[in-house]
Amino acid sequence: MEDDFLFMTLLYDFYGALLTDKQREIFEMYYLNDYSLGEISEILDISRQGVYDALKRAEDSLEFYEEKLGLVKKHQEMMKKIEKIKECIKLIKEREKDEEILKIIEDMARELEELNP
Amino acid sequence: MEDDFLFMTLLYDFYGALLTDKQREIFEMYYLNDYSLGEISEILDISRQGVYDALKRAEDSLEFYEEKLGLVKKHQEMMKKIEKIKECIKLIKEREKDEEILKIIEDMARELEELNP
Repeated sequence: MEDDFLFMTLLYDFYGALLTDKQREIFEMYYLNDYSLGEISEILDISRQGVYDALKRAEDSLEFYEEKLGLVKKHQEMMKKIEKIKECIKLIKEREKDEEILKIIEDMARELEELNP
Repeated sequence: MEDDFLFMTLLYDFYGALLTDKQREIFEMYYLNDYSLGEISEILDISRQGVYDALKRAEDSLEFYEEKLGLVKKHQEMMKKIEKIKECIKLIKEREKDEEILKIIEDMARELEELNP
């Protein structure tokens, strides 16, 4: 359940912009601010069922987009590769003596840090 | 116009999976297989206006998704950074003498090649 929760917030990071304003509001209250369905119902003055339905539609949309575009899966694969490249950089820095090469390695590490998949 | 054409096919690479089957079919005939609206109209037995409308809706959808998610823009920024990292690797390979480090550089280059944003 905790895993599902985390996965849902990850989907939201990638596809949240495609939800409606109302879906985003309810999603954030539930998933990011930890309100219960009952609390959201009271605060927004919608029936509990209405909150549940909106949340369910938002979740279904997010899952639909991931099924079609697979951005979260792709992101996780890229992060693994970037981690491996960082390990390579670390190994080289430990061993390298040439100041000129060390400078290039630093440039490379900086580009890699800014590579934000 | 040529630029628009290229940009549209790029959008399609990223968001084509979100179009309907019919939109994809017409989009591919027009943009990828170079059929005219009139030819598509004949082949699919739809009015020329029908073809135009479907194509327009597909283009609007692709632009909407890019506006919301910006994947093409992000991809192009990442490709620039990856190119810079590749240049760094090239520079190091030209200068490096240490066989062990060259081996690590090769591993790094391979990971980078597989980094497919």
